[in-house]
Amino acid sequence: MIKKIVFIGAGNLATHLALALKKAGYHILQVYSRTQLSAETLAKQVDADSCCSYEDLRRDADLYIFALSDKALLPVLQALQLKGKKLVHTAGSLPLSVFDDFTTSYGVFYPLQTFSKARQLDFSNIPICIEANGSDLESELIEMGNRISNSVQLLSSHQRKQLHLAAVFTCNFTNHMYHIGEELLREEGMDFDLLKPLILETALKVQEMPAKAAQTGPAVRFDEDVIKAHEESLKMQPDFQKLYRFVSESIYHLHKGK
Amino acid sequence: MIKKIVFIGAGNLATHLALALKKAGYHILQVYSRTQLSAETLAKQVDADSCCSYEDLRRDADLYIFALSDKALLPVLQALQLKGKKLVHTAGSLPLSVFDDFTTSYGVFYPLQTFSKARQLDFSNIPICIEANGSDLESELIEMGNRISNSVQLLSSHQRKQLHLAAVFTCNFTNHMYHIGEELLREEGMDFDLLKPLILETALKVQEMPAKAAQTGPAVRFDEDVIKAHEESLKMQPDFQKLYRFVSESIYHLHKGK
Repeated sequence: MIKKIVFIGAGNLATHLALALKKAGYHILQVYSRTQLSAETLAKQVDADSCCSYEDLRRDADLYIFALSDKALLPVLQALQLKGKKLVHTAGSLPLSVFDDFTTSYGVFYPLQTFSKARQLDFSNIPICIEANGSDLESELIEMGNRISNSVQLLSSHQRKQLHLAAVFTCNFTNHMYHIGEELLREEGMDFDLLKPLILETALKVQEMPAKAAQTGPAVRFDEDVIKAHEESLKMQPDFQKLYRFVSESIYHLHKGK
Repeated sequence: MIKKIVFIGAGNLATHLALALKKAGYHILQVYSRTQLSAETLAKQVDADSCCSYEDLRRDADLYIFALSDKALLPVLQALQLKGKKLVHTAGSLPLSVFDDFTTSYGVFYPLQTFSKARQLDFSNIPICIEANGSDLESELIEMGNRISNSVQLLSSHQRKQLHLAAVFTCNFTNHMYHIGEELLREEGMDFDLLKPLILETALKVQEMPAKAAQTGPAVRFDEDVIKAHEESLKMQPDFQKLYRFVSESIYHLHKGK
């Protein structure tokens, strides 16, 4: 059974996940980070040791959770030499097989959410996507998932990669649309607050109905007059203008084609 | 003072606005729509008469609210001949001046929200954007706005047009990103429910922090490995693939440039 956990990484995801696991009764032994300050900041919040050199890493944990950038994982794995230990990563786009050469029992524990340190998060609604190379670890990870969330999912590496791609569209690209809205308002002396109820309602609508049914506005009916007037308004911002035309056409085609 | 109101149009916006005004104590005299069924459906909900021919329109209202598509407004205005009456429209992208030739007292009463008949809406948070060609009507519209919403704004036609454009980005384009996410999940046998907590958190984050600070994901740090892998996943959907590259570059440039 998993009781004692070491975190490799102390970023946004590591912070939120470590706090949730600590709250669920797990013992966070240690937090490793390249920089002492990051390691200590998180370690203090979860009553753990901290370390920033490979040789100081504790070897007596039941599970090592890697919460690193995709690029950093491989070099750190090579340096740590954790053969025989149970290892998981938390990345959407990395396959299970990244661990193949490094240990015998390994898996993925991927919480699908956008994490910022400044925001408190309730983990109970966050989907936890699990994969493991053996049924024992799979069961242990499912149990760990169930102790912090009501939505635990078994997904293959292929599915998880597609889910991560879909998350880029629905989170990062969506946030970019908010950002452009904010910029457009600022230009004309208006406050971003004006858009906040609209942003929230747009997100609430698709909790209840398919996104296709929720679509409104000039693009879905391809109202050429409004679209042209908007493009004219954007003539000084060719990047936004191109994006406007491109997304409008994409909306129209996706609705016409289905 | 405005007490008796006639609605020209019975679509999503007209329905939500008429219900809110009725609840706030206004008397909806009549609902006009091209089709009898639409007119009657809304009229019943607000205890009003209905009509679908221009000659049956009542002439004794204090205010005529036009909630029509942008294209329909001018022909209907020409046909109705409401000289001497107070007229407002509810459109983001139409200037105040569309009424210039039709009456002496006119304005705009634009609630900024995405309206679907199936969803109940609390008007109290919805920004109401007001403009009028005279201070008397402006005051009356402000009072009417204050009776249904806590967020009444005076905006010029130019500002309102820009706000509407920003709303297309933050609502319609955002909803399109949800729609693409839904499609990508369906392809791999996953349910859209998986993305719902992420969608909601993304919208909640920008209620508290600027969109720029809220951005996460591969595009903002231009992680070429992840971006290329995502593009590879989209090779069978060239439209999504092009959109993916385009929005990723736009995110990167907007963050780098500021």
